[in-house]
Amino acid sequence: MPLILYDMPRSGHAHRVRLLLSILDVEYEQVMVDMPNAEHKSAEYLKLSPLGQVPTLVDGDIVITDSTAALVYLAKKYAATNWLPEDPAGAAAVQRWLSAASGELYRSVVQARAGRQFHREVDFERAEAEATRLFNWMQSELDQGTWLAADHATIADLAMYSYLRVADEGELDLAGYPAIIRWLADVEKLERFEPMVRSQAQP
Amino acid sequence: MPLILYDMPRSGHAHRVRLLLSILDVEYEQVMVDMPNAEHKSAEYLKLSPLGQVPTLVDGDIVITDSTAALVYLAKKYAATNWLPEDPAGAAAVQRWLSAASGELYRSVVQARAGRQFHREVDFERAEAEATRLFNWMQSELDQGTWLAADHATIADLAMYSYLRVADEGELDLAGYPAIIRWLADVEKLERFEPMVRSQAQP
Repeated sequence: MPLILYDMPRSGHAHRVRLLLSILDVEYEQVMVDMPNAEHKSAEYLKLSPLGQVPTLVDGDIVITDSTAALVYLAKKYAATNWLPEDPAGAAAVQRWLSAASGELYRSVVQARAGRQFHREVDFERAEAEATRLFNWMQSELDQGTWLAADHATIADLAMYSYLRVADEGELDLAGYPAIIRWLADVEKLERFEPMVRSQAQP
Repeated sequence: MPLILYDMPRSGHAHRVRLLLSILDVEYEQVMVDMPNAEHKSAEYLKLSPLGQVPTLVDGDIVITDSTAALVYLAKKYAATNWLPEDPAGAAAVQRWLSAASGELYRSVVQARAGRQFHREVDFERAEAEATRLFNWMQSELDQGTWLAADHATIADLAMYSYLRVADEGELDLAGYPAIIRWLADVEKLERFEPMVRSQAQP
């Protein structure tokens, strides 16, 4: 029975998982969740994902309702210890960025884009201030090494990539952060890389 | 050389790590960071933790600047697989809550408490709405099992505990969530449990 990914094309949360599935060459069935028509808040979907979040990864009886948890699951299941190191320092270095994906990245780039593209009510000033802190930090980390958490790509890079690639959709400018731009390109050179879906040009 | 924890008594982020250090019976040196006097934004501390966050865990050359990453590090280093399962489904179940700790919990309870106790500028309405969603979800999960991520306590429980225990300091009421109240008490029965430091009564 193949894995099932409850998916939404423009969700960066979903893209992270799609990206690792592609990289690990795992077959899966894609089920689209019609978020514009609030299918993610339907009684049926809430039974799967109690907070109504996309993506959800289903593997038989196992239901994973969070994108970083899905990354951990896939790396472990397919014994991809290059993608999720098992040693204490390596695992902690990855976790620092998984936490940032749910925290600092969400509060900055994800919010700014949701406000600009999906017209959510957002405190842009706060999102932009948090984005500046995040970008400065990433720039400084990526000035010191090719990848975020190890001397090779890990799920930390995939967790951070998707929304950074569309930062401009939140009217956030990466021009001042050459190391981040270099790193985005490096992620895109990974074997079986699959691009993030851009929003349509605004009218 | 013992571990060093850069700590702040009333930080729930720091308490998570202190709690696991105590439970695992790990010796460490505690260094207080004077957050009221902005020591966490000093040049010296920013060299350690680029985003100026507390806690930071230091183990020789290894510097861990995030509380969930510190929990992962300690569980791995002390081979505490009961606290962090190694199998794909078990690890993903824990990660779902580590993500919630940096995401849903931060945006709700942490924010509400920061606004009420530390007079940070906070969108209380949004924090309260997110808290209601989080509490309903936790209540439903804890109605089905004693612990959050496994049939025993894991770092998922520790990551979620500290701020939930002081939810009232954010003027959030857990009275309608008996399973959460029961779970808080169960965490407190763990061997070598160490309590969360409450804020002083407001004048």
